[in-house]
Amino acid sequence: MELDTIAAISTPMGEGAIAIVRLSGPQAFEIADVVFKSKSGKKLVEMSSHTIHYGHIIDPKTNEVAEEVMVSVMKGPKTFTREDVVELNCHGGLVSVNRVLQLVLNAGARLAEPGEFTKRAFLNGRIDLSQAEAVMDLIRAKTDKAMNVALNQMEGRLSKLIRSLRQEILEVLAHVEVNIDYPEYDDVEEMTTKILLEKSKMVQREIEKLLTTSQQGKILREGLSTVIIGRPNVGKSSLLNALVQENKAIVTDIPGTTRDVIEEYVNVRGVPLRLVDTAGIRETEDIVERIGVERSRKVLKEADLILLVLNYADELTKEDEKLFEAVAGMDVIVIINKTDLPEKINLSRVKELAKHHRLVTTSLLEEKGVDELEESIASLFFEGTIEAGDPTYVSNSRHIALLNQAKQAIDDAIEAAELGTPIDIVQIDLTRTWDLLGEIIGDSVQDSLINQLFSQFCLGK
Amino acid sequence: MELDTIAAISTPMGEGAIAIVRLSGPQAFEIADVVFKSKSGKKLVEMSSHTIHYGHIIDPKTNEVAEEVMVSVMKGPKTFTREDVVELNCHGGLVSVNRVLQLVLNAGARLAEPGEFTKRAFLNGRIDLSQAEAVMDLIRAKTDKAMNVALNQMEGRLSKLIRSLRQEILEVLAHVEVNIDYPEYDDVEEMTTKILLEKSKMVQREIEKLLTTSQQGKILREGLSTVIIGRPNVGKSSLLNALVQENKAIVTDIPGTTRDVIEEYVNVRGVPLRLVDTAGIRETEDIVERIGVERSRKVLKEADLILLVLNYADELTKEDEKLFEAVAGMDVIVIINKTDLPEKINLSRVKELAKHHRLVTTSLLEEKGVDELEESIASLFFEGTIEAGDPTYVSNSRHIALLNQAKQAIDDAIEAAELGTPIDIVQIDLTRTWDLLGEIIGDSVQDSLINQLFSQFCLGK
Repeated sequence: MELDTIAAISTPMGEGAIAIVRLSGPQAFEIADVVFKSKSGKKLVEMSSHTIHYGHIIDPKTNEVAEEVMVSVMKGPKTFTREDVVELNCHGGLVSVNRVLQLVLNAGARLAEPGEFTKRAFLNGRIDLSQAEAVMDLIRAKTDKAMNVALNQMEGRLSKLIRSLRQEILEVLAHVEVNIDYPEYDDVEEMTTKILLEKSKMVQREIEKLLTTSQQGKILREGLSTVIIGRPNVGKSSLLNALVQENKAIVTDIPGTTRDVIEEYVNVRGVPLRLVDTAGIRETEDIVERIGVERSRKVLKEADLILLVLNYADELTKEDEKLFEAVAGMDVIVIINKTDLPEKINLSRVKELAKHHRLVTTSLLEEKGVDELEESIASLFFEGTIEAGDPTYVSNSRHIALLNQAKQAIDDAIEAAELGTPIDIVQIDLTRTWDLLGEIIGDSVQDSLINQLFSQFCLGK
Repeated sequence: MELDTIAAISTPMGEGAIAIVRLSGPQAFEIADVVFKSKSGKKLVEMSSHTIHYGHIIDPKTNEVAEEVMVSVMKGPKTFTREDVVELNCHGGLVSVNRVLQLVLNAGARLAEPGEFTKRAFLNGRIDLSQAEAVMDLIRAKTDKAMNVALNQMEGRLSKLIRSLRQEILEVLAHVEVNIDYPEYDDVEEMTTKILLEKSKMVQREIEKLLTTSQQGKILREGLSTVIIGRPNVGKSSLLNALVQENKAIVTDIPGTTRDVIEEYVNVRGVPLRLVDTAGIRETEDIVERIGVERSRKVLKEADLILLVLNYADELTKEDEKLFEAVAGMDVIVIINKTDLPEKINLSRVKELAKHHRLVTTSLLEEKGVDELEESIASLFFEGTIEAGDPTYVSNSRHIALLNQAKQAIDDAIEAAELGTPIDIVQIDLTRTWDLLGEIIGDSVQDSLINQLFSQFCLGK
């Protein structure tokens, strides 16, 4: 596939020691040679692949030096994109790296779209779609476990599994073809149905197994959307601070995107907690009041986990009871805080209200109970399973949706086959299963989807 | 010089396409080999210098894959530090790059201090102190012109000039030595004084020339500290927005450092304007009120430029007059805003008050007058000189201070020589000049100063 040559700044924006302008495409060396003057006087096109060269970036119009660089030359196909790649390793200044990029663009490169390098790796067949998606997940991973899920997927573990399932289906389909082509042999039909059911049930089991990892996988990838609620002055801010302080590996959003940070990530025993509307809590200590009843209900509904805080040293009020009503049926951990003060709360009533929920008592003032709370959070979602072994997690919503559809299709195929439906009808459901699984790894997806997926990547990747 | 092996993340913190963990030191290859598994199976110590290798970072304890990397191998002395250098080029995730760094540290590297790579480049003699300082200036440069100043300095232009001046002084000192050693020759003393005066005056002229660039150089490097003042509702926010919007190359402070951004950089025709307390202006439209009279006087006093805004459509008040008093003797541009409304201001009185200042009329609502304002700002500080040629700017406060001291010392030497002071007394001032110039390039500086200078660098550089 012959494409144009693209370029972008591939390091994060900010002051740092190193900034990289990356070029990829058939003209990568020629374009870089327009602006690069090596110390040896040799041109990059003459250099061996996978070598590094010292020199300067020169503005060809004025002959002025624009940067001092180390240049990496990598010839396709043994590169990230499978194309010729040049990396200009600059001193990490924002102004200087931007000028280098500008010179490269003036010399004939096109500014890369977000994700376009990875898209080329996909289009050129180096990685499949689920691997490409994992590249971005790896970059955005908030915890070690999330990173491992992404790494496994990037290394092709999920792809391999999907491919083997598709292979099984393909073999069944081959049998079906034989059956349709030679309908005169009765025993072939019987045999085919038998094999079809056997193989289809195996595929069904594997899809189900993958789907059981999906809830956890999704949480690891996207974080557990968590909302802290409670009346004013029960200790919501203190709870937030305790969670944030005890768990250092916090990754807040990176600037350039938004200044009004309303989310904070906290790593609770490998589970990334995405604390929603923390700004509201920090400022007013009352999320419900701040964001309004209407919106707060929406926030609650979208949450994966509710931390409902009560005051041990105060009587239970109508407001408290209303909070219990609002979160009925959700994953809730009830926290009775301020156990350092004398008991005033009606504990038996709390136990009744919280009978479907976990209950933890804390004294955030005395730093008591936070461990138990974290234990509750981790076990609520992982029940210890995450520690055991290293399963292939499905973490991406797109993959989960496709697996659910594939499961429906294979269910239909099995049901039809068991009911004795003509085999060429069953074939339709099987083919559909095969197609849906193919979409996960990008074997049968539309250009518009591809474009949309890669546009969510960061620049320079 | 044999040092230990250091490692750090050398790309800016944030989500990006590429993150680099850099190692430097005698054990760089061996340490990297502990965690790196190349695709070819070969060890990094066996690789040729300046080559790139694909493989994985492995946790040696668990044999788990921690990252997919491209590794650059560079053998000293042809490296940034003159030591053996390894760069682990990772996918740009915060969690994953931190884990890679951790593995490298576990394998025996020490976490580098801020600026330690550059410090080694200095200690190992690859660059001198002024060049090392320029590396950081380059990274922090806010405009193209500031970047050029840093680049020139990094390439050694200032160093070369300083070295040649020191050489001149050294030659004079040699003559003086001869004179002291052979006092019996009268004509030698005469000759020596003549040469001493000639050469010293030349050095004096060169130092003076350098110092004339220092005001502009300092502005280019550090930005022009600018304060916008005026009564409420005269259009301070609009002015701020107009300056910010028209000049895209804005570089705000990078996160991790501080969240309360009270400065904004604006590139006005190559002059970096550092707008002070913009947060205050944006929020309350009244800097004086917000930061209190005491503090606001301090802010004013430290400013390089005051933009004093008046309301064309309102009468001049006592407050306006007080503002003029407060900024007497400073660099002020008076802006009469809201010319789209009917005139109410007493223009002749304004002209009287502003007789030592530049005066610009604007209608920020109709986007009129901003060009003239920017022209005023640029010409106030550069009078067109910056466009002409490409002088060697002195931009660093440390260098400026040393040059001022060196000038004083050479002045003293010349005066003494002209008064017929014994030559061995003059020698003291000359030696002092020589030492002071040496401090600029780091030929005669103390360890504590070196440490302090490099500690201001960013991590990984």
